Amino acid sequence: MGDTTRVTLAQLAREAGVSIATMSKVLNGRTDVAATTRARIEQLLAEHGYTRRATGRRGDHVELVLHELEPSWSADLITGVETVAAHAGLSMVLTLSGDRHAPGDDWIDGALRRSPAAVILVFSDLARAHRDKLKRRGIPFVIVDPSGDPAADVPAVGSANWSGGLAATRHLIELGHRRIAAITGPPDALCSHARLDGYRSAMNAAGLPVHPDWVRFGDFHPSGGEVWARQLLALPDRPTAIFAGSDLQAIGVIAAARAARWDVPGDLSVVGYDDIPLARWFSPQLTTVHQPLRRMGEEATRLALRLGEGGQPETLRMDLATHLVVRESTAPVPTDAPGPET
Amino acid sequence: MGDTTRVTLAQLAREAGVSIATMSKVLNGRTDVAATTRARIEQLLAEHGYTRRATGRRGDHVELVLHELEPSWSADLITGVETVAAHAGLSMVLTLSGDRHAPGDDWIDGALRRSPAAVILVFSDLARAHRDKLKRRGIPFVIVDPSGDPAADVPAVGSANWSGGLAATRHLIELGHRRIAAITGPPDALCSHARLDGYRSAMNAAGLPVHPDWVRFGDFHPSGGEVWARQLLALPDRPTAIFAGSDLQAIGVIAAARAARWDVPGDLSVVGYDDIPLARWFSPQLTTVHQPLRRMGEEATRLALRLGEGGQPETLRMDLATHLVVRESTAPVPTDAPGPET
Repeated sequence: MGDTTRVTLAQLAREAGVSIATMSKVLNGRTDVAATTRARIEQLLAEHGYTRRATGRRGDHVELVLHELEPSWSADLITGVETVAAHAGLSMVLTLSGDRHAPGDDWIDGALRRSPAAVILVFSDLARAHRDKLKRRGIPFVIVDPSGDPAADVPAVGSANWSGGLAATRHLIELGHRRIAAITGPPDALCSHARLDGYRSAMNAAGLPVHPDWVRFGDFHPSGGEVWARQLLALPDRPTAIFAGSDLQAIGVIAAARAARWDVPGDLSVVGYDDIPLARWFSPQLTTVHQPLRRMGEEATRLALRLGEGGQPETLRMDLATHLVVRESTAPVPTDAPGPET
Repeated sequence: MGDTTRVTLAQLAREAGVSIATMSKVLNGRTDVAATTRARIEQLLAEHGYTRRATGRRGDHVELVLHELEPSWSADLITGVETVAAHAGLSMVLTLSGDRHAPGDDWIDGALRRSPAAVILVFSDLARAHRDKLKRRGIPFVIVDPSGDPAADVPAVGSANWSGGLAATRHLIELGHRRIAAITGPPDALCSHARLDGYRSAMNAAGLPVHPDWVRFGDFHPSGGEVWARQLLALPDRPTAIFAGSDLQAIGVIAAARAARWDVPGDLSVVGYDDIPLARWFSPQLTTVHQPLRRMGEEATRLALRLGEGGQPETLRMDLATHLVVRESTAPVPTDAPGPET
């Protein structure tokens, strides 16, 4: 209770007709208070704009929330969060929300009980009501790589997706490719659109057409890449290069090419996205856009902890730079390849 | 406090010369009690063999402890734990211990504060003192794939490592290979030895020699596999097949073979271990020993929850079956390969 504004809490308890102990239970996410009482108290806390005073006393861990464990992708990010947390004397707790867009009520109740020093959310936004619950308890949160378009006051760390798409496509154009297809992520993720726009800009700047058949929205898994690549490679004027939405999608593309007896990169160039640790062990080693996942985890955690200490960072948003890593899966366009549509 | 034996706790508090509230704080892993007082109380609890009564009231999550996030490997295991936890209405919290052998004091303090319904440890054993702390609080724990040789009363779920090593090696022998090398895991992990013994038994049963140069202990990462394979492939009578200790090690082996311009499986057959989700996306698709990681996570969680409810399972140990999955990275021995040493 040392970290709450005592008088106000006592007043609120009187107004709610409950004991301070009950108020405290609700603030600490305990479920041994009737649901209707909890709802009434939350309502009251919201009306009075109650928030815990930042006193420097904090929970003992940073809570990282993933919607699923896409493990190849998340490892570096998790390491980044863990490193900064450890440096601040905190442990890291990872929870899975099970929903790509926003963790549910179960998660928020558990998180309040665990009382983290900070919450880092990957992809998912947070329902307005859940954001408010965290705020009232003085628990800061930061979203990494937001999938939607979070409100301006929501702290977020992302990466330069548009530039990544541009760099990948320019590289293929410089190798002489003109029929370049793009498979991107799910249509409800902002990063999918940003990368695709980067691709379109590079194509437009080079005066190259983008055939509607050459653009696909998919998921970030190998199987999605395989399915779309099989369709792209069956087109009458097949693309000579594919820009994939993730490294995992890219190995699906390579598998589809192998099944069709096309050599990568001899017959088809493939660029991935992310530069996961395994990308350099793929066969061929993957040319890909490096996304600084570890640094994104680090920066998000630093920002959250600073907010928790009552700091006022100059900016609540940052996008870290991406860059192209050229390995073996891209090569000059085959000389017998058909030219672009005219 | 509803889940403690009140009378005994009051008596112990008197004996320790502290309040019941202080006793309760220590039991709940709070650190706002002087370290010396905490130690004295733990000592007293141990002397009196104090344990919380199992009352069916539990924490709201299962805590899964990994020593590091080897993500490709751990994804299925994590999913298994999460599935059974969710089925029991619990969430899953993942923490990293940072030490392959036993999580440290930081971890145990945090875990007690979080008060999980059960703890699942991967690989690592638990220091005797930490095991006792969990027992005193009625928090059950199970070790998955123990790396050491835990005491007989420590619940553990593993897999049939010896049979896996045997099956992998037999498969290579049936393809006509006689010069078969093995790279296994770290020497301080029991599973490394069990797999290697399975390999030796298969070689012995077929009357094949095992040259000392053909056996290497390594780690489970691609880089380790690459380094050892480079050495094995440089031997005057190089092996025609390598049984690797993990799928990640196997892609390191394949990378080394490619760098030396040996074709896999044309010139060299490679068998992995684990059957991680990506194994079928490698190029060539990996022949490997399937370890039922997801089921291991499920069984460990079921066992822990049963123990937490006061159940007395017939056995505290189980090894789940492994089986060979034949894909593309193994082939009959090349006809021009040298014969075995005589």
